[in-house]
Amino acid sequence: MFRTQRRVEFRDTDAAGIAHFSVFFTMMESAEHELIRSLGLSVLGDSAVTWPRVAASCDYQSVARFEDVLDLQVSIKKLGNSSVQYLFRFSKTDAASQPTQVALGTLTAVCCQLYPGGVLKKVPIPDSIRQKMQPFLV
Amino acid sequence: MFRTQRRVEFRDTDAAGIAHFSVFFTMMESAEHELIRSLGLSVLGDSAVTWPRVAASCDYQSVARFEDVLDLQVSIKKLGNSSVQYLFRFSKTDAASQPTQVALGTLTAVCCQLYPGGVLKKVPIPDSIRQKMQPFLV
Amino acid sequence: MFRTQRRVEFRDTDAAGIAHFSVFFTMMESAEHELIRSLGLSVLGDSAVTWPRVAASCDYQSVARFEDVLDLQVSIKKLGNSSVQYLFRFSKTDAASQPTQVALGTLTAVCCQLYPGGVLKKVPIPDSIRQKMQPFLV
Amino acid sequence: MFRTQRRVEFRDTDAAGIAHFSVFFTMMESAEHELIRSLGLSVLGDSAVTWPRVAASCDYQSVARFEDVLDLQVSIKKLGNSSVQYLFRFSKTDAASQPTQVALGTLTAVCCQLYPGGVLKKVPIPDSIRQKMQPFLV
Repeated sequence: MFRTQRRVEFRDTDAAGIAHFSVFFTMMESAEHELIRSLGLSVLGDSAVTWPRVAASCDYQSVARFEDVLDLQVSIKKLGNSSVQYLFRFSKTDAASQPTQVALGTLTAVCCQLYPGGVLKKVPIPDSIRQKMQPFLV
Repeated sequence: MFRTQRRVEFRDTDAAGIAHFSVFFTMMESAEHELIRSLGLSVLGDSAVTWPRVAASCDYQSVARFEDVLDLQVSIKKLGNSSVQYLFRFSKTDAASQPTQVALGTLTAVCCQLYPGGVLKKVPIPDSIRQKMQPFLV
Repeated sequence: MFRTQRRVEFRDTDAAGIAHFSVFFTMMESAEHELIRSLGLSVLGDSAVTWPRVAASCDYQSVARFEDVLDLQVSIKKLGNSSVQYLFRFSKTDAASQPTQVALGTLTAVCCQLYPGGVLKKVPIPDSIRQKMQPFLV
Repeated sequence: MFRTQRRVEFRDTDAAGIAHFSVFFTMMESAEHELIRSLGLSVLGDSAVTWPRVAASCDYQSVARFEDVLDLQVSIKKLGNSSVQYLFRFSKTDAASQPTQVALGTLTAVCCQLYPGGVLKKVPIPDSIRQKMQPFLV
């Protein structure tokens, strides 16, 4: 499991005084990218493959507010032939060190090769990448 | 069914040259609010009730690009005692008038009453609101 | 002068209950693009030229809130050899039809040609485009 | 001078393949808040005063791309009776350790007291806060 943190910035909040529900999706993506970088893999750029999203979801258990520091656990729920489904657990810890579940999200990406002219074609996840992802599978 | 449109603005795009997957969630919310206003109901403000989100999801079928005008169909998939689940179909129409499915999303909100001190308490959806939502149930 | 409107959506607000100051910049850009389209010009795509930004500014006179519909006047403050500075006036009208100034912003873009390899080179604004922009100069 | 860093996340980019110009404004704000927290002051919450923005500007010297880590220097350009103008220098360092200026921005905020009913009234910056801000004045 990969662990990181994200602070709720002011622009992440809305007029209800809480982190907007859409913000969790961009936090998931930046945590996914942090995980990929931690494996020594490239997110974009010279990489042979790219990972367009096919699905995203989030269930909200409690609210997060401005300046809350969220603990984020990233794991892999499903590692298919071409697809990977990440699982994200957001929680926060109060002053008494009690953790509260905040949200539980998923992001499903498909391994694609990029051909000239911007054409994307689904390919099996290369073994070198699969091996690095395997330890995060739950 | 409620129909509206959303144009993909430049800030909605990302370095992959397409509308970022998170953008569909804010489009869903603004379409939900447009539907609520069309019913003569207030989204916030003087309304007796408020609608925090408990879940959101989106499946992506094809990409949307800068300046694409997306057709958006909003319906209600489930109208519970206290909760409402909206369904959003995004599609686009090409030069030859052929429609393409772009994304299919859901947003689940719970009817809550706001008490002094910012306390939220789940309440049944008031009949006056339920009656106005009923025609959108599929 | 070009006139358009923008509604303050829920995601545009922040925990202070108002439209976040950064939102005015994306509204300016989408209004600029709407103006460019209204001239029959292409914002990106098959156009020979592109318009990277070199400066942006905004002064805030009063707040905008969720669901406010802002009137937006777009004009051109300076039309240089290669650069164009747009001026944006945001105002809102209350129930008694009294207008209130909300914000005054500028956006400065430079006309560039895009060469292979993503190289941008500043070029004079083509006459065909300059002629279409001229009427908006104040 | 206060120093921090911000990584360009994927959602910060646009279809031109670079960090969108509006993103620098939210980076400025989060750096301002980081500075305020570093002084032991509260950004919102139980603080006696709040800091609505009256102006924001940014000049762009070169582009930033996905995954670039930007160095951010925050100083105070003007410390008035009631207002503070922050100055933000964004730069990046290439593989050969050569720094490049990316952008130069300002944010002007006014010290206000919040009265019941959401009424804001401009007040002099309290001495306790002024003393903590003074060392950042350039």
